[in-house]
Amino acid sequence: MNQWEERISFPDSKIAAYQQGANFRHYKLVVEKIKHPILTNLTIDALGYNQSTPGPLIILRQGEWVFLEVENRLDEPTALHVHGLTKPNTQDGNPVIEPTPQIQPGESFTYKFQAWRCGTFFYHSTHDFQANLGLLGPFIVIPREVKPEAIPNRDYIQVIQQWQINQPEIGKVFSGTYKPIKFANNPNFFTLNGKSFPYTTPMYAKYREKIRMRFINKSSSNHSMHIHGHDFNIVEVDGFPRHGLFDDTIFIASGKRFDIEFIANNPGVWPVNGTRSFHQSNNGETPGGMISRLIYLPSIR
Amino acid sequence: MNQWEERISFPDSKIAAYQQGANFRHYKLVVEKIKHPILTNLTIDALGYNQSTPGPLIILRQGEWVFLEVENRLDEPTALHVHGLTKPNTQDGNPVIEPTPQIQPGESFTYKFQAWRCGTFFYHSTHDFQANLGLLGPFIVIPREVKPEAIPNRDYIQVIQQWQINQPEIGKVFSGTYKPIKFANNPNFFTLNGKSFPYTTPMYAKYREKIRMRFINKSSSNHSMHIHGHDFNIVEVDGFPRHGLFDDTIFIASGKRFDIEFIANNPGVWPVNGTRSFHQSNNGETPGGMISRLIYLPSIR
Amino acid sequence: MNQWEERISFPDSKIAAYQQGANFRHYKLVVEKIKHPILTNLTIDALGYNQSTPGPLIILRQGEWVFLEVENRLDEPTALHVHGLTKPNTQDGNPVIEPTPQIQPGESFTYKFQAWRCGTFFYHSTHDFQANLGLLGPFIVIPREVKPEAIPNRDYIQVIQQWQINQPEIGKVFSGTYKPIKFANNPNFFTLNGKSFPYTTPMYAKYREKIRMRFINKSSSNHSMHIHGHDFNIVEVDGFPRHGLFDDTIFIASGKRFDIEFIANNPGVWPVNGTRSFHQSNNGETPGGMISRLIYLPSIR
Repeated sequence: MNQWEERISFPDSKIAAYQQGANFRHYKLVVEKIKHPILTNLTIDALGYNQSTPGPLIILRQGEWVFLEVENRLDEPTALHVHGLTKPNTQDGNPVIEPTPQIQPGESFTYKFQAWRCGTFFYHSTHDFQANLGLLGPFIVIPREVKPEAIPNRDYIQVIQQWQINQPEIGKVFSGTYKPIKFANNPNFFTLNGKSFPYTTPMYAKYREKIRMRFINKSSSNHSMHIHGHDFNIVEVDGFPRHGLFDDTIFIASGKRFDIEFIANNPGVWPVNGTRSFHQSNNGETPGGMISRLIYLPSIR
Repeated sequence: MNQWEERISFPDSKIAAYQQGANFRHYKLVVEKIKHPILTNLTIDALGYNQSTPGPLIILRQGEWVFLEVENRLDEPTALHVHGLTKPNTQDGNPVIEPTPQIQPGESFTYKFQAWRCGTFFYHSTHDFQANLGLLGPFIVIPREVKPEAIPNRDYIQVIQQWQINQPEIGKVFSGTYKPIKFANNPNFFTLNGKSFPYTTPMYAKYREKIRMRFINKSSSNHSMHIHGHDFNIVEVDGFPRHGLFDDTIFIASGKRFDIEFIANNPGVWPVNGTRSFHQSNNGETPGGMISRLIYLPSIR
Repeated sequence: MNQWEERISFPDSKIAAYQQGANFRHYKLVVEKIKHPILTNLTIDALGYNQSTPGPLIILRQGEWVFLEVENRLDEPTALHVHGLTKPNTQDGNPVIEPTPQIQPGESFTYKFQAWRCGTFFYHSTHDFQANLGLLGPFIVIPREVKPEAIPNRDYIQVIQQWQINQPEIGKVFSGTYKPIKFANNPNFFTLNGKSFPYTTPMYAKYREKIRMRFINKSSSNHSMHIHGHDFNIVEVDGFPRHGLFDDTIFIASGKRFDIEFIANNPGVWPVNGTRSFHQSNNGETPGGMISRLIYLPSIR
């Protein structure tokens, strides 16, 4: 049996519930306004799927169909696009251009398509700047067949987001609840799985485990991520295999996904962080922003 | 005979006329101020080559020489650099550093060099910020010898540009004629082949054709492009072959060119678009910006 | 004997002195405030290592240990991280997260770890925005064993930095001495090895030599570099080998390093420059910014 699915973790976020059918999974996403804390003292008036941003993880096994029901509880239209898994035009979710519906307030629509290839994808709203306000989430398809030894011991998802939040001045965090500016041209808060450092939950491991991390960027900026203490193998880009690409720093442009793997052979508490200085702050207050941690102890025998 | 050349399209733009000589083509580019509409209600005071921005397509066959005559009708100097096809120092067009002329107002200069390798290149002004104001265009060299089955059925050029245009506020388009700010540090309009959505002309295809797209970025930002409904093969980067690089989203940094190919096997009306949210707007009004469409019907038998 | 080390050049900057031990080198870096001219008429109140920004080049041979003594003469803490060469947690230099010390004012700490793999790395401060103000430098490990014919004739380091300096208006340089804004969100000056064009020292070569260039970006922006007149081979990315990656323009995201090689087969005076227009200016005054030159004459026989 394929055990990969149960090894996937999405720290600080949720895994979506679903109804299993005959070769399909039925997921339901409710779109509504939410209050979302990115720091203990900073909450944003965001848009969420099932009360969270990023939205809950949707997982499928390669070959299954997804029935993806989207209920719109906003007062404006929405629509949902799964980025990167080709599907029929009617299910692609860009109603301005495609023969696919706008989902009006109070209405629902169920997208149906097959997860014909495996990989790391994401879903997001295509309406106006709703994605900038929180309407996006990870969408993972695990391989139909895989050798047990190829399955990582831990498989962590990290979704990169950024927010432009009015603050009286740069250099510190002014606590409160804020509505982000939807254009997000001058972001000043940066989150991994919806939280900013030091509020990000670490990724834990055990010595000598094989760790996979999936970085997903649907922000409007490009981000580099650096893992301290560990070189890694870039195993997939946008769900397509890559070979022999060892590295220590990856550049994840807007819309792209990088899957990396490494062996946990250097115990400690390690930063996993963006490389652009301001992105490692909360409105200029350091440390903050796009920093998580990888934590494991040496082997005890 | 090599039929590739006649399959190249440059939607919304022009293909430059030329005089064929013995193993050379003589192209003439006139540099002058132009009025250029990027939307039906928004015109810019741009700089153009032969009355257009991007400038007209220059095509050569590998091995030919180009005689590239540039006439300066501006009231300031100009110079032209073809980015990425190595050539002698005197023909490279960076007069601040190289032994190559400034072309003074009212004067002309003819660059001469050989298209010794094939690929996707571009030309642009090297004087001050003239390229930001419109002085750039595509430069394609098609292979000298190619198997007929390797030639794509359609070969589309998409030139990415961005513009900083004074608008009273962000969020909608204020119609009129504007002179863009040459520094272009905070761009608010984004064009493909000189037009913003919904004013971009679609790319048409037929079912099962092999489609090539050449994305060229000489803007001052980095752009990701996503093609809906189709995974693709990255066949060349900056005119150099790549192998086995399948993807659904490409990151095209400033100065780079990506040639992709795919089979039109998923009929519909598909967005071809940038992934950064603001770049899919016109000054924050959605939809807009860097969006084109790929359109074809299913096979009818 | 391995001659690579003596072929490395770091124009406009210094190579650090060191004490050679038995399989280790002891380097000392003093952190203090400096006055650093990036142009003849523009000096910045920067932070430097051994009176310079970028800091001096640290070179090791693969297999050697480095003893890297950092003395803090600032009035705030500092810490030093070598980016990209994995090492024990205690030596990694991120004291907010790792069991590694803050170096308090007036104190010193000596990092000790092995240069177990070769490649291009860099060191930088991890405290607040000190790296944005100048605290970074190149760290090169040359291979333990290499065939003499594989050694480049010249090996040039180019460290990319950017600065946000208050100027009354955009478009020209207002001379004086300025303290850069540490957040560096809207940079207006761009340097290679600490100097802006036309103040950058050229890279010289001889006809038919094999030239290597190592581009290092620890700025908060992403930069493309273009070499005129020469296509090149990307031989290493972040110190890991790459194969068959020919190109003419490289995109160097924040935190990344690109090593390229080419044969000097096209004599002249050639720009080596960033591709984003504004980055080729000094606060909007052209030419300027991230431009260096490659210079060599044709062979004289």
